[in-house]
Amino acid sequence: MEVVVIPDHRAPVVTHMVWYKIGSADEPPGKSGIAHFFEHLMFKATKNHPAGEFDRKVSEIGGDGNAFTTDDYTAYVQTVSPDALPTMMNFESDRMRNLVLTDDVITTERDVILEERASRVDNDPGALLSEEVDATLYQNHPYRIPVIGWKNEIEQLNRTDAVAFYDRYYAPNNAILVVAGDTTPERVKELAEATYGKIPRGADLPPRVRPQEPEQNTSRTVTLTDPRVSVPSFSKRWVVPSYRTAQPGEAEALDLLSEILGGGTRSRLYQKLIVHDGAASSVGAFYQGSMYDATAFGVYGAPQGGDGVAGVEKAIDAEIARIVKEGVTNDELERAKTRFRRGVIFARDNSTGMANMYGSALSTGSTLKDIDEWPDRIAAVTAAQVQAVAAKYLVPGKSVAGYLLPSPEAVQ
Amino acid sequence: MEVVVIPDHRAPVVTHMVWYKIGSADEPPGKSGIAHFFEHLMFKATKNHPAGEFDRKVSEIGGDGNAFTTDDYTAYVQTVSPDALPTMMNFESDRMRNLVLTDDVITTERDVILEERASRVDNDPGALLSEEVDATLYQNHPYRIPVIGWKNEIEQLNRTDAVAFYDRYYAPNNAILVVAGDTTPERVKELAEATYGKIPRGADLPPRVRPQEPEQNTSRTVTLTDPRVSVPSFSKRWVVPSYRTAQPGEAEALDLLSEILGGGTRSRLYQKLIVHDGAASSVGAFYQGSMYDATAFGVYGAPQGGDGVAGVEKAIDAEIARIVKEGVTNDELERAKTRFRRGVIFARDNSTGMANMYGSALSTGSTLKDIDEWPDRIAAVTAAQVQAVAAKYLVPGKSVAGYLLPSPEAVQ
Repeated sequence: MEVVVIPDHRAPVVTHMVWYKIGSADEPPGKSGIAHFFEHLMFKATKNHPAGEFDRKVSEIGGDGNAFTTDDYTAYVQTVSPDALPTMMNFESDRMRNLVLTDDVITTERDVILEERASRVDNDPGALLSEEVDATLYQNHPYRIPVIGWKNEIEQLNRTDAVAFYDRYYAPNNAILVVAGDTTPERVKELAEATYGKIPRGADLPPRVRPQEPEQNTSRTVTLTDPRVSVPSFSKRWVVPSYRTAQPGEAEALDLLSEILGGGTRSRLYQKLIVHDGAASSVGAFYQGSMYDATAFGVYGAPQGGDGVAGVEKAIDAEIARIVKEGVTNDELERAKTRFRRGVIFARDNSTGMANMYGSALSTGSTLKDIDEWPDRIAAVTAAQVQAVAAKYLVPGKSVAGYLLPSPEAVQ
Repeated sequence: MEVVVIPDHRAPVVTHMVWYKIGSADEPPGKSGIAHFFEHLMFKATKNHPAGEFDRKVSEIGGDGNAFTTDDYTAYVQTVSPDALPTMMNFESDRMRNLVLTDDVITTERDVILEERASRVDNDPGALLSEEVDATLYQNHPYRIPVIGWKNEIEQLNRTDAVAFYDRYYAPNNAILVVAGDTTPERVKELAEATYGKIPRGADLPPRVRPQEPEQNTSRTVTLTDPRVSVPSFSKRWVVPSYRTAQPGEAEALDLLSEILGGGTRSRLYQKLIVHDGAASSVGAFYQGSMYDATAFGVYGAPQGGDGVAGVEKAIDAEIARIVKEGVTNDELERAKTRFRRGVIFARDNSTGMANMYGSALSTGSTLKDIDEWPDRIAAVTAAQVQAVAAKYLVPGKSVAGYLLPSPEAVQ
């Protein structure tokens, strides 16, 4: 088990996280949703504790507990006062191997998850559209598959699947322990040896190789027309490299490109579409750099009267084309670096944010050295590099656009 | 090994086919193209015969040999004079288990396949578009993946993959022997026992369960713009049930719907778009009913001047909408049944056609009873059933349209 300790004694609080290097992109074919399903099962009874006891304990002592699943990892977190750290580590290490997975537990929780999917996805046209945009964007890579799982596959998940998944992936050698806040490496080491250290390592896992994207040759659109849509919206995505897969400097340049294009009220899209044209009520850009494999860069906007989503798309395309053709100014780049750095510093200015940064980076193939050097690498990005990644990756003929539209009946 | 004999003594010719119930949709994730790759490897040296000897033998005796791979099966066929049947069965049963798979053989053949992909797909914009239309149409099912494989995955296929595939799938218990033409069941049985009968059965294979399509909620488009395109074209596809997965009568109704819409010069699309409007130079419809899992129904057309692909799409959509709203006439249905039956009878009026029909049906989950009853089930389809499947499956909000366009530079 890899152990990372980030001491920070400014406040009497500690964040304890265990990150498993298993996410929805690692699921067996046809078993979509099993990684997220398992996150739910981790709150059930173990040989040593009844269901809910761990959660109740965290609440009792005034702490915060949480868990989340992404394409690349599943993480469990508690933020508590330092004296509760041993208790957290006892509970967390206990459920790493001692869950009691009965048919009854599985069936009951499967219904909970189907209900979660119904309310969060099936009843939300924007979420449904997003699922099918991703299923279109990734033609081969499992990032195509929703983290919560396809409904028809969640319905089939069973005890055999859960036990196989637990035995394969929940073991110290597939986990990273991150402890940030008011503690010391020595103390964490001592506690970890007494808890996680007692758990035998699992079988060695094969290299984490998922099916990779082939070259893309087409532009695609995905349209969802639904009477429940009140605000239409538009998005466009491209497959781009992640920090792990990019050529040196490219991921950093994509991060700054997204900041210049769509990061906050000083960004190009905001200034042009909202302030200047008044054609959009919201706009933005994103780059999901901390993914294990090739990932998405996206832009989006919601129209404000006038030409609707077509007008927003045209204006966004024009702003991208302008960067590809003319590049960005040094001044604009420096301001973006400052804003970007400030945003990141702010997000990390507490033990949970720090633990999140280290855990997510280490779970997606970055090293501690990558994390340490990252601010310098952002600082070194040039305007030419930003222009180059825009030209190389934001190619019109390789994009996927999503349109969320009210039904024609609702419009007329 | 399942053995099917279809005696037909009209001509002194016999078709010998072996069908393996393995196609590209059964490939392990990340190993796309291995089924087709293996079809090539089957023509290499065995322990008993040098590479090419089987092929040369078929040519020498004036026969025809061939092989093909689809999403659902891989088949090997020879059409020869009856006295050569024992020789064919000797060679075919030999390569079922006795291939000599060296690194050298694999590497050389991989280059051949990469060249085949380059010339047939990468150099053909229509083929490239079709790949990405399928990758968009199927959001979860492996029919998304091209039979020839993604280039980046073909490049990685190696001897370990090939040996694992051979050992798993090439065995009598995963194969169907179909012999049609101038022979008898007794003769085939005797020969089969002396050849295939000597090969030990392989390990039992798990049920053939592939990831299934989730419900689709969006309409999608896929556009390829390329200066190599001289004739623009349009297609639209929907996911519909196959014969194996359909409710009773639905697959037959889809077959007749495709015939009424786009089967030949009497079809609605031909009469309207080509004869009446002069807006298209070609049109058609297809239903890929003989697939193991849910499959595609499609329409297509190439414009003739005027409104281009947009005009063709609009006219095709209108013809579909008219069937959904008004149905088809009994007279039209009866004529379609006659045309359809005649086309099928013609296609099957020789030993190879018969062997193909039985082999493909049995490899995709149909039974001999299904094949026997099929003409009666086609005859029983009503106009109301045709209208019902059009309304149920050809839904505008769940379609994928493909546009093949010349580059703007080429047009201007």
